[in-house]
Amino acid sequence: MAQKPSIPKGTRDFTPQEVAKRNFIFDTIKKEFKKFGFQAIETPSFENSDTLMGKYGDEGDRLIFKILNSGDFLKKADQNAYDDKDSLKLTPSISEKALRYDLTVPFARFVVQHQNEIDFPFKRYQIQPVWRADRPQKGRFREFYQCDADVVGSDSLWQEVEFVQLYDAVFSALKLEGVTIKINNRKILSGFAEVIGEQDKLIDFTVALDKLDKIGEDGVVKEMLSKGIAEDAIAQIKPVFGLEGGFAEKIEALKGILATSEVGKKGIEELEFIQNALSEMPLKTANLDLDVTLARGLNYYTGAIFEVAAPENVKMGSIGGGGRYDDLTGIFGLKNISGVGISFGLDRIYLVLEELGLFPDAVADDVKALFINFGEKEALYSFKGVNALRAGGVNAEVFPDAAKMKKQMNYANKRNIPFVILAGDEEMQEGKYTLKNMKTGEQDRLTLKEIVTKIG
Amino acid sequence: MAQKPSIPKGTRDFTPQEVAKRNFIFDTIKKEFKKFGFQAIETPSFENSDTLMGKYGDEGDRLIFKILNSGDFLKKADQNAYDDKDSLKLTPSISEKALRYDLTVPFARFVVQHQNEIDFPFKRYQIQPVWRADRPQKGRFREFYQCDADVVGSDSLWQEVEFVQLYDAVFSALKLEGVTIKINNRKILSGFAEVIGEQDKLIDFTVALDKLDKIGEDGVVKEMLSKGIAEDAIAQIKPVFGLEGGFAEKIEALKGILATSEVGKKGIEELEFIQNALSEMPLKTANLDLDVTLARGLNYYTGAIFEVAAPENVKMGSIGGGGRYDDLTGIFGLKNISGVGISFGLDRIYLVLEELGLFPDAVADDVKALFINFGEKEALYSFKGVNALRAGGVNAEVFPDAAKMKKQMNYANKRNIPFVILAGDEEMQEGKYTLKNMKTGEQDRLTLKEIVTKIG
Repeated sequence: MAQKPSIPKGTRDFTPQEVAKRNFIFDTIKKEFKKFGFQAIETPSFENSDTLMGKYGDEGDRLIFKILNSGDFLKKADQNAYDDKDSLKLTPSISEKALRYDLTVPFARFVVQHQNEIDFPFKRYQIQPVWRADRPQKGRFREFYQCDADVVGSDSLWQEVEFVQLYDAVFSALKLEGVTIKINNRKILSGFAEVIGEQDKLIDFTVALDKLDKIGEDGVVKEMLSKGIAEDAIAQIKPVFGLEGGFAEKIEALKGILATSEVGKKGIEELEFIQNALSEMPLKTANLDLDVTLARGLNYYTGAIFEVAAPENVKMGSIGGGGRYDDLTGIFGLKNISGVGISFGLDRIYLVLEELGLFPDAVADDVKALFINFGEKEALYSFKGVNALRAGGVNAEVFPDAAKMKKQMNYANKRNIPFVILAGDEEMQEGKYTLKNMKTGEQDRLTLKEIVTKIG
Repeated sequence: MAQKPSIPKGTRDFTPQEVAKRNFIFDTIKKEFKKFGFQAIETPSFENSDTLMGKYGDEGDRLIFKILNSGDFLKKADQNAYDDKDSLKLTPSISEKALRYDLTVPFARFVVQHQNEIDFPFKRYQIQPVWRADRPQKGRFREFYQCDADVVGSDSLWQEVEFVQLYDAVFSALKLEGVTIKINNRKILSGFAEVIGEQDKLIDFTVALDKLDKIGEDGVVKEMLSKGIAEDAIAQIKPVFGLEGGFAEKIEALKGILATSEVGKKGIEELEFIQNALSEMPLKTANLDLDVTLARGLNYYTGAIFEVAAPENVKMGSIGGGGRYDDLTGIFGLKNISGVGISFGLDRIYLVLEELGLFPDAVADDVKALFINFGEKEALYSFKGVNALRAGGVNAEVFPDAAKMKKQMNYANKRNIPFVILAGDEEMQEGKYTLKNMKTGEQDRLTLKEIVTKIG
């Protein structure tokens, strides 16, 4: 009967210390979300398969976890697929539900389904786990939390301004200073493609451009050539590779490069709006950078594109990203709802805070005092004491057994409990308790009220 | 392409108002858990199937949601089961993972897997969703949250005392006064069976006794007879049906009934310990009741059994339950770890608070002020204002578009935002903002600092 217990690969148990640190991040983010007027929604862990399938491409479909129908599921199995032993074809007839793959499609489904109850613009945030049957590797899990904020129902560029401010507010509140918020615009990328007369190769063009950081200018040129983009077209776009300087300088350079493209000029106008607003309201700790190579989910974004990089002294991929999309809910039949949103990469933010030692000490240190248990009579006195501490808002506990002193002190040490409280005959006669500081060894005989004042 | 969107039956979307109310309950419970020294853990949503299967009986196995293996899952399918088209037999070969069915088995798995990192006694709480392929009905869902607190690694009866206090603390903090915490002990039930010489029919006996409330004494007798319990044995136990009075009176009566049973006397001793401790530390708002018919998961519990009933003026099943178990981790190979725990029935508590109007008004009312948008120049002035409010800790937003006044005011009304803030030329010249109370219509022209003081 006994099994050596384990958990599925790509999943994690979280210990109390880890939960406390993760909650520190979640709580900080939520507090800022609320300050900015976002409201939480939650959607079910599994959706009807046809809500999810076909929304993330073939690769996405493959990575969606499917739930087997209950009961005698083979009764409704597609007989042809069964005879052919074709897993892919058989699946829809034996599985009608699937685990959430991201929060975006369920959000779109939510907006359409509840459109009559929602007051637009709808500012929602959502922090829930998602599941992907990806090959697990360092930092990539099969179950992980996503943390998204979106506004739908307004195409005001003030939203973009606010999302930059929101990133700044969250990372400042986490004391993670010096992140870089990179911004680009789909219309800039479209403008490039238009200027060089390669609109039909927009995707190939931007996918190659997006790699400038990694493979350098020569690599990008090579990839563009291999995709059939003409050599003189590439020559025309070369100034883009070398864009340097601050936001304003890059904008000036772009005005030259994109002078003949209407869509490109619209992109510049949008970027300038954001830049102007933010120059009137300076960011607290983040840097804003215009990165014209930034593409992310290009098929998806129609305007602004965001990505956040960790401070330069930390090696880490992006810790956040997002953008403007103009037809999220169209797949569910609700047209012309523009939206814009950002997400936070929880697991990477966790690693960055850990590396930089930015988690507050108090995070995992929530029990303030342990009452030592000397036996039945003393225990009752201690339980009366613990009740008073809790009533005073102090997290505290009594060791449940009259175990050896050493064992009880060890427990306090390992749990990082900063104070122990001892009470024997003398204390009971005086109506007091001896409070011992575990770090300094200092002891005081005090009333409960005094203890609450001192450690509460 | 457009689909009419819906969610799987038995699942729920939660709107911002609902999330806020649910979080009010969760946050209240968590705060008390922490005061009592419990620490949060989290486990994966899905476990290896062999961790879960066989732990909840045949019916439980049937209700566990199984996850289809990824890729060409039929390649590894059991050929015999496939040829027989036997769903039940085929399942283990095409599904290796399953969604969590409760929090207890994953907790046991966690304790065994991490036994070398854990400092015992281990006081953990866990608030996560579970999934059951049950037939959905009013108040029964296929995805719902469980909310458990357990201590493992100590058999001290002080734990039982603390769990009664914890129930009292949580329900008092929720302002749900007058709940009844019913307590029984497996050893009392064993004692009854021993006294009447029907130890081998303990389950049948207690299942029947548990129905006393619903089917009355005659019904219970009839069911016992039908299970082969002798008529004179039943006659001997009749005093149990009529137990009345307070805790102490019932204890006295039990001392007579169970005089010849060692296990029964041990049960009485345990109940008396709890009763004595609690008479020294009176509960705040809950009532404590000894209910000798209470059985719950009898096969599972070995000592105390708890159940919480809503206040008498509310019709609702139990809103919490728990008990002592002596071999939770044995199924995973770790013997002799005693544990005791309780759970809170979130969905029912929600319904009770709703029915009694106990949710605080402020719960869903988190945005304090909406800045009206009059156009680009005014909007920048408003965004500067909203930044200052947020820096002062006030949740606030600017309407993103310069829409018609009526539309913006409607939005504030529907979102229950208590203040709107207006700023045009005059306010901008004075460096002030007009604050309007949405309920009273009262208006004041104030500085940002004054506004933060007034509504923060």
